[in-house]
Amino acid sequence: MGEVEARLDALGLALPALRRRAGKYVGWVQAGDLLFLSGQAADGHVGRVGDELDLEQGRAAARACTLNLLAQTRDALGSLDRVRRIVKVLGFVAAAPGFTALPAVTDAASELLQEVFGPEVGAHARSSIGVAALPLGFAVEIEMIVQVSGAAP
Amino acid sequence: MGEVEARLDALGLALPALRRRAGKYVGWVQAGDLLFLSGQAADGHVGRVGDELDLEQGRAAARACTLNLLAQTRDALGSLDRVRRIVKVLGFVAAAPGFTALPAVTDAASELLQEVFGPEVGAHARSSIGVAALPLGFAVEIEMIVQVSGAAP
Amino acid sequence: MGEVEARLDALGLALPALRRRAGKYVGWVQAGDLLFLSGQAADGHVGRVGDELDLEQGRAAARACTLNLLAQTRDALGSLDRVRRIVKVLGFVAAAPGFTALPAVTDAASELLQEVFGPEVGAHARSSIGVAALPLGFAVEIEMIVQVSGAAP
Repeated sequence: MGEVEARLDALGLALPALRRRAGKYVGWVQAGDLLFLSGQAADGHVGRVGDELDLEQGRAAARACTLNLLAQTRDALGSLDRVRRIVKVLGFVAAAPGFTALPAVTDAASELLQEVFGPEVGAHARSSIGVAALPLGFAVEIEMIVQVSGAAP
Repeated sequence: MGEVEARLDALGLALPALRRRAGKYVGWVQAGDLLFLSGQAADGHVGRVGDELDLEQGRAAARACTLNLLAQTRDALGSLDRVRRIVKVLGFVAAAPGFTALPAVTDAASELLQEVFGPEVGAHARSSIGVAALPLGFAVEIEMIVQVSGAAP
Repeated sequence: MGEVEARLDALGLALPALRRRAGKYVGWVQAGDLLFLSGQAADGHVGRVGDELDLEQGRAAARACTLNLLAQTRDALGSLDRVRRIVKVLGFVAAAPGFTALPAVTDAASELLQEVFGPEVGAHARSSIGVAALPLGFAVEIEMIVQVSGAAP
């Protein structure tokens, strides 16, 4: 177990199994030292934030999406210790009309990334968007770009 | 005609003319070996998927968007044979309330890319999002990042 | 004052102060020669375009977002003269039902970028999307990728 996974473990968290994909794409593609991750939702976290789900449930969904992204990152790199920088996070929140606390939802992802990788590696650029619908009714979907240390495997 | 265009031809498909742009931007920008393509919709494919358009019509829109993206890619690179990897697809679907089969719509783009480029080059990371509105009422809009072989032209 | 800021000045514009961030992220991350900027909204530009805001108000919001992006870019690079190319713009517009003139809104950002940097550097790939909600009710949010001259600072 690498350093980053040890930190996850100390937080009482573990990488989930890779999710079955919802369509005909792959979980990640590396181009040069940039790793582009497909949007990850989280199974069981369904419904709109602001009516069917409250803020805390939305944040739980964002955290679960992030763990799914980290599982894909380990799949890509062999070890999370090869993450050089979390570059960019794009968070989509299925939002009830009038619900605009979108940054508070996506913050759950940003906080987890910075706890796990530390602020130097984990701090990232980000946008948060409220959308009409997410695949299969998921509450939150997050995609991410990661800069990688070392050559492509 | 290059190899990739010959495969398009064998599928009974042809690259359309470059569409007139809807605003003051360009169809693509290459930075290093990454080609960033502007979101492409498809003329005539208008309306929300899930009420005005059914799933098959949404999939036809996604395929037409993809052909427009490939026409832009050839414009950028001279030949589709210079595509090294389809890196990332971001699909926006104008979705009727309650329509969540978004991945099935975007799959039409993903399937076409993999048929045309083969799975090694064509398999890509992806997110699919349901949005409130697309420019001029289009049903689907897709943007794409492509990794390129050889130097910038 | 660099050349690009002198052009802003001649247009009667100035870079605003860096906005307080709405969440736990940073304004930009540079990876290689690509600078990824967080989505920027604009304070005071709140409401949906197409009902609460008209097209001109939406365009004013897009211009103000762009100035915020340029302030972040200078923060990242020290000088806007280090911008080699505006690569990609992704514009999110909080759109009233039935409002589809999204490109006309985002064009205000695209026009400003091309006025300030000139067409060679300022012309960019772009997507414009109408969304259900933006953070804190903002009318427009824009994120951007910039290619940078010279080494990372």
